Amino acid sequence: MVSTQKKALSLVEIAQKTREAACQLSILSSEDRDQAIEAIAEVLETATPQIIEANQTDCKLATADGISTSLYNRLKLSETKLKATIIGVKDVKKLSDPVGNLQIHRELDDGLILKRVTCPLGVLGVIFEARPEALIQITSLAIKSGNGVILKPGKEAINSCQTLVKFIREGLKKTKVNPDVVQLLTTREEIGQLLKLDNYVDLIIPRGSNSFVRYVQQNTHIPVLGHADGICHLYIDQKADLEKAIAITLDAKTQYPAACNSIETLLIHQNIAPIFLPEIAQVLSNNQVELRGDEPSQKIIDIVPATEEDWKTEYSDLMLSVKIVASLEEAITHINTYGSKHTDAIVTEDNIAANLFQNKVDAAGVFHNCSTRFADGFRYGFGAEVGISTQKMPPRGPVGLEGLVTYKYQVTGNGHIAATYSGENAKTFSHKDL
Amino acid sequence: MVSTQKKALSLVEIAQKTREAACQLSILSSEDRDQAIEAIAEVLETATPQIIEANQTDCKLATADGISTSLYNRLKLSETKLKATIIGVKDVKKLSDPVGNLQIHRELDDGLILKRVTCPLGVLGVIFEARPEALIQITSLAIKSGNGVILKPGKEAINSCQTLVKFIREGLKKTKVNPDVVQLLTTREEIGQLLKLDNYVDLIIPRGSNSFVRYVQQNTHIPVLGHADGICHLYIDQKADLEKAIAITLDAKTQYPAACNSIETLLIHQNIAPIFLPEIAQVLSNNQVELRGDEPSQKIIDIVPATEEDWKTEYSDLMLSVKIVASLEEAITHINTYGSKHTDAIVTEDNIAANLFQNKVDAAGVFHNCSTRFADGFRYGFGAEVGISTQKMPPRGPVGLEGLVTYKYQVTGNGHIAATYSGENAKTFSHKDL
Repeated sequence: MVSTQKKALSLVEIAQKTREAACQLSILSSEDRDQAIEAIAEVLETATPQIIEANQTDCKLATADGISTSLYNRLKLSETKLKATIIGVKDVKKLSDPVGNLQIHRELDDGLILKRVTCPLGVLGVIFEARPEALIQITSLAIKSGNGVILKPGKEAINSCQTLVKFIREGLKKTKVNPDVVQLLTTREEIGQLLKLDNYVDLIIPRGSNSFVRYVQQNTHIPVLGHADGICHLYIDQKADLEKAIAITLDAKTQYPAACNSIETLLIHQNIAPIFLPEIAQVLSNNQVELRGDEPSQKIIDIVPATEEDWKTEYSDLMLSVKIVASLEEAITHINTYGSKHTDAIVTEDNIAANLFQNKVDAAGVFHNCSTRFADGFRYGFGAEVGISTQKMPPRGPVGLEGLVTYKYQVTGNGHIAATYSGENAKTFSHKDL
Repeated sequence: MVSTQKKALSLVEIAQKTREAACQLSILSSEDRDQAIEAIAEVLETATPQIIEANQTDCKLATADGISTSLYNRLKLSETKLKATIIGVKDVKKLSDPVGNLQIHRELDDGLILKRVTCPLGVLGVIFEARPEALIQITSLAIKSGNGVILKPGKEAINSCQTLVKFIREGLKKTKVNPDVVQLLTTREEIGQLLKLDNYVDLIIPRGSNSFVRYVQQNTHIPVLGHADGICHLYIDQKADLEKAIAITLDAKTQYPAACNSIETLLIHQNIAPIFLPEIAQVLSNNQVELRGDEPSQKIIDIVPATEEDWKTEYSDLMLSVKIVASLEEAITHINTYGSKHTDAIVTEDNIAANLFQNKVDAAGVFHNCSTRFADGFRYGFGAEVGISTQKMPPRGPVGLEGLVTYKYQVTGNGHIAATYSGENAKTFSHKDL
């Protein structure tokens, strides 16, 4: 049994084993990694009955504990959902290899060659919700990118995840990938320990509530890929096409209100507010959206007053705050003050205004005449989404496989020394890209 | 006077002003930024007498305080050094623009276009040594990359830096760049405050001692670009060409022992140690290098015993620890255990061994048959070096202007909404690179 075997090891020992196995994985070929992903898909197909059974145990326990419907739906792994996830694993196999890409290839001097080559990060620590198929997706992305992974699922999914990891490791035994690249943590206490393992873990990916992500960000020196908040704005400019404005507002708010790329605040230019606000308020109200408005909007429609707190709140629900602004500049300032640097959009037929907005708004996504809901790795064509980052340093925004690799500088010479290139008679570098 | 004007403002107010000015700077054209850099070069030429005078005041005060010769040489800004630095400013102007580069250009669907475009980070906080010309270099790199910069120089250089910032800001007044993009902090207390300004500062670049960099890394949630340690290794493989091995060892240790890319530990394969060690020990001793060796090396030559502490020490001086290893794997394990992920090199004629070394050693620079001293932004052909990072996430290794920019996703549509692409009858994305 995986779990009992692991209880005997300390987290540091688990991390060391993962690191060693990941180091071996990092030098395997693209084909070897793809074969391992194929083996995972196969073993999951074969073990489907056992996986479903383990998930049913989790579901029963969670029901007895009075789990909410939405959490239950995430926890539940039906045969259909598992099948779709296995197809997803095969899709990951087909993605282009993020490892070994030559980013710089340069002659520094005769026979002295610089290469910058992408390579795996090492070991990922992923703390995720009680959703068993997430484990499968994360593991296949980790192996594709040559990384080891330490997984900590939400506690309700423990049986499912133990069974999944048991079979994934069995599947890997038949491949060149050491099964130790995949590790499962089962207790909440281990999260705190995991965050301290700077020496063994290269990236933490926390998924879950805003407050949890913020906790992780503030309690580790390991780089964190994630977003605590998704406070997205839609600004309806004075030169907006109102038909587009209505369609985009409705989509950005109601298509999936719990998503981080849904809008929380609607900014409207004062010149069009008297026409646009009553119209959009009606449409939103027909779609069960509750509105909160600033003083000027209260003069146009009957609306619950918005407070300062509203501008800072991610409702994640059918609620929307409304503010009327005197200018594009005021809209940009509001967004840069209250936004979470996730995704903000402008609706306008004025390309100069759009351009200013897209340049001055400080966010990972700056959109023009389309819904903020497009901010997503799959929609961007990344093939997979590892996470969305609202940090300003790259990787930023929706992050695909590229977020799981780093690079190295390889310099190869033939006895070259630096002294040749300094002092009197210093030789000059050729710096010729190859 | 710049300094008195600033004392009246709190650091938060200074940071806000810098941020506003940087936001204006971020939308200026390449030409506007280059003109500002030209204006800086011109004003520094004109104000040379005043700058030299202010530096002489600093030098006198420092001498009275008993400053060391090496620190004095860094502090001293001769007319020759200033002239060379001004030429450097003009070189920065000539570098290719890191802002506005199109990294992804993709049609998501008819009329729905995704662009990933590089953009400035925002505001940089740079804490640097008492070396006045560093202020000039940093400022020109910041403006080239569209960023504001808050500068905190070593206290000995205060007069020089106040004078420099005064004239740089005067020079900027004649350009489209708001002089508020350049700010000077003058007290040590302000460092602690600066590190807390997550909302206003996007990147901290600490330059200075290892312990100072480590202090900064552990006391801020702002991303840090820097390296605390430079523990670099050179491994002499059993298939090494001994002539190359001797030349590279000597260069990597003695060409500039205080540099972070100089080696601290020499690893030697046991099969060649009996021949190589006595020879290299003689050469190093002729060059005033003190050696410390492990037990096996003590059996070959007369050498001071090395302790565990030696493997973890950056001597930054003419000292070198020596360890004999039984295999390439043992060398790699030693490096991955004690190294600082900076730069490590192998000398060998065996390309398979070199390849394994370059893949498995976890460092920003993995070199073959050349000196570790090549790990440098200028030598790599970056035109400028902003810093060297030993973090694993990019930017890693020597970082040029590319480390001062991030990117944004700009999506432009014509009323596109996400609902069109989901549910039954979902339209598919075209994902066609343009």
